[in-house]
Amino acid sequence: MFIARGAAAALMSFGACLWISTALAADWTEQDLNDAAALRDRALSGTAAFEHVESLATQVGPRFAGSPGDAAAVRWALDRMGKLGFSNVRSQDVLVPRWVRGNAEVVLLSTTPQFLAATSIGGSVGTREEGLEAVVVQVDSFDALQNLDANTVANKIIFIDQRTERTRDGGGYGHAVRARVQGPSIAGKLGASALVIRSIGTSDDRVPHTGALVYSIDAPRIPAFALAGPDADILSRHLKANKTVRLRLKSTARELPPVWSANVVGEIPGRERASEIVLLGAHLDSWDLGQGALDDGAGVAIVMEAARLIGKLERKPARTIRVVLFANEEFGLSGAREYAAQIGEEAGRHVIAMEADTGQGPVWRIESQVAGDALPAIAAMHEVLKPLSIELGANDAGGGADIRPLRALGVPILDLSLDATLYFDVHHTANDTLLKIDPKVLDQSVGAYAAAAYLAATKQGDFGRLPPAGGE
Amino acid sequence: MFIARGAAAALMSFGACLWISTALAADWTEQDLNDAAALRDRALSGTAAFEHVESLATQVGPRFAGSPGDAAAVRWALDRMGKLGFSNVRSQDVLVPRWVRGNAEVVLLSTTPQFLAATSIGGSVGTREEGLEAVVVQVDSFDALQNLDANTVANKIIFIDQRTERTRDGGGYGHAVRARVQGPSIAGKLGASALVIRSIGTSDDRVPHTGALVYSIDAPRIPAFALAGPDADILSRHLKANKTVRLRLKSTARELPPVWSANVVGEIPGRERASEIVLLGAHLDSWDLGQGALDDGAGVAIVMEAARLIGKLERKPARTIRVVLFANEEFGLSGAREYAAQIGEEAGRHVIAMEADTGQGPVWRIESQVAGDALPAIAAMHEVLKPLSIELGANDAGGGADIRPLRALGVPILDLSLDATLYFDVHHTANDTLLKIDPKVLDQSVGAYAAAAYLAATKQGDFGRLPPAGGE
Repeated sequence: MFIARGAAAALMSFGACLWISTALAADWTEQDLNDAAALRDRALSGTAAFEHVESLATQVGPRFAGSPGDAAAVRWALDRMGKLGFSNVRSQDVLVPRWVRGNAEVVLLSTTPQFLAATSIGGSVGTREEGLEAVVVQVDSFDALQNLDANTVANKIIFIDQRTERTRDGGGYGHAVRARVQGPSIAGKLGASALVIRSIGTSDDRVPHTGALVYSIDAPRIPAFALAGPDADILSRHLKANKTVRLRLKSTARELPPVWSANVVGEIPGRERASEIVLLGAHLDSWDLGQGALDDGAGVAIVMEAARLIGKLERKPARTIRVVLFANEEFGLSGAREYAAQIGEEAGRHVIAMEADTGQGPVWRIESQVAGDALPAIAAMHEVLKPLSIELGANDAGGGADIRPLRALGVPILDLSLDATLYFDVHHTANDTLLKIDPKVLDQSVGAYAAAAYLAATKQGDFGRLPPAGGE
Repeated sequence: MFIARGAAAALMSFGACLWISTALAADWTEQDLNDAAALRDRALSGTAAFEHVESLATQVGPRFAGSPGDAAAVRWALDRMGKLGFSNVRSQDVLVPRWVRGNAEVVLLSTTPQFLAATSIGGSVGTREEGLEAVVVQVDSFDALQNLDANTVANKIIFIDQRTERTRDGGGYGHAVRARVQGPSIAGKLGASALVIRSIGTSDDRVPHTGALVYSIDAPRIPAFALAGPDADILSRHLKANKTVRLRLKSTARELPPVWSANVVGEIPGRERASEIVLLGAHLDSWDLGQGALDDGAGVAIVMEAARLIGKLERKPARTIRVVLFANEEFGLSGAREYAAQIGEEAGRHVIAMEADTGQGPVWRIESQVAGDALPAIAAMHEVLKPLSIELGANDAGGGADIRPLRALGVPILDLSLDATLYFDVHHTANDTLLKIDPKVLDQSVGAYAAAAYLAATKQGDFGRLPPAGGE
């Protein structure tokens, strides 16, 4: 972080015109700014973004890392970027872990057995073939899990009944997701026989939410399940009404040997400083339960279409726009790590990195993590985005998961925040389908990404470098 | 139909005061009308209806005819009505058919196989163990199915891609449902190997919709499946993009021997003319996929709570309020048929029948099917219901499915129309859960049912008799 939020806010209180005129002299020609605004407006009148995501979701569908769908998605991306006129279209081999969900069965042993809508958490071990049956101990939060006494939960099933708050910036998810990621190993260390959580999402529908767990090296690996919201309610109501509630759990989830997947890359070459790169990232893989329309078909469509629109301009930007569709974001960031590992000296020529991985949008905020003297340029970019109802955030952007390894190498970051209010209704569930996408919203996002990327690729100076950080 | 819609509308244009004063003299004392209004208002300030449906959906859950859940529901209803202070609580044995859904698998054989969210239609035969695989022929409507040429569809899978219109009165469902009920036998007669339909519902979620089919005696029984809306979209998009699309279908659905279930009956005895009955019906069974919270847990709760509120009054109505929770509405109306078959001479003492089976409400209309000279009384009842934003409909009420056999015996009918606008988002799907119920809405429905039932049970004269009709 190079400027405190307070200081950034103070800077923002200067008049916009001042920024534009300052920036104009230092960073962009008037034509650059006009061309960016024209890109923005053209997108609003309709883009091909929906066609991209429709094609990916329909022709490929689910594409979990290492699955046949994943391989089909790589072929799709190479083919699509080629047809759309990208240059230097290529793949980069990435070894990905291979986990298979199998079937999950969670049965509430009430008067009559009730089958609850549930799924294995991504990466979970399965149960023995006959399953397991145990008494349930409920906690209301991840914090309460951490305070449990091992004596009270040994050989029992722990149920974390924590709700995910609906927020525009995704903060509710970020808070709740610890139950899924770290919960299984904490429960395992306590001697529990399994962990069951309320889905990390905001849906009222009977579609359980998946996503990855991370087993600690020093914890027993116990099976972990997520219940759909209504099913967490059923279990919770039974726990209120009855002294003892038992569940029967079965899962055939299992790990297989790693297999090869690939990042897919395509470029709109710059006309003057082509070796300098503005990176637009999204991830090609999806979870297995849905079509991956919003996560991250929408992101793929937004960055491909933003770059394509720039590529169609008569006056190409000075720098190269590089679209990277990362392999296996969902289950270990394999593609992002490989890209950063192979980047070598090219890292220094990555002028800025952007990512689209929070659904369709609309973009509601621009945030940066750039050197302090590039902040007037960010404010000037914001002026171009403002007609799209986009706010200017602080200079502490986190970057999406796939560009964090680049950030760690010193690459500056620009976040166009996609509105996450409704995103966690469908994210990582079977409901992540095309029906949840509004082409008009997608067009707004394309407009924002295209204008911002164009400005980044035409800017006279760069955005500085960030101090290298350890890991992502 | 005893009065044309036009005539009814003309009658309705008279001033409300006229009706009330006319009715007052002929049908009700002022205290009757005041007590009905007080019941209505008390319900709005909160009832126990949600507790009833919460208990049924949680403690019993799914209760498909003949299943262990169905038997548990009968025990639940006997127990609950007893505890709530109903009189003459009893069960009436009903033989019900027994169908088991098993597992359904619909796989789109694309570049990589895509599993579509699907379920067997209720009553469908299963496939051979290895399943079946065939080319798909799409039609856009039930009418188009009827016009298909057998030569073009023999040994193929027919896909009916017809959408269900969202309507307040449920008419959209009534129109679309023919594809499910009659489609399988029409397709069978055409020589198709299977039928796949777009779910008969309005949901955008990945929850397929079940419901019963009726096989014709003279048609080959072919397996029939419903795809969730987003999955019908996937198939439809593939059919647009590709000349030939193949599906692989598997289903382990099967029929077992019939088993015993029961109607459950409880009464609030009348204080003067206790042998005369105002019947409030709902059905106790549900489909197997959801909790049956809206279909028909809500109806069970509405009629039980309306009757309970009447039972708590110091001044009980003259007639008996009889609550009947019918067995197996969903898969053949077994309970309603048995009730009517056993009714004998008591039929003539059923003054009027009402039913709640379209979800939680709110009630938006009152419709009747009564003798012409009882219409002023219906208009007066409407005056009492008007503060709940309830319209007066015509005298051509259809009655719910469970009271149609009574209608056929000449029993007059009162329909309190429950708002179906959102009902078919969840009806017959896994999403039919408590989370979709708003206790406040349920309270409005209880207020309307309680006030109407109270008025029917205190009315001086009756509602006449209808000419007997054949069957339901």
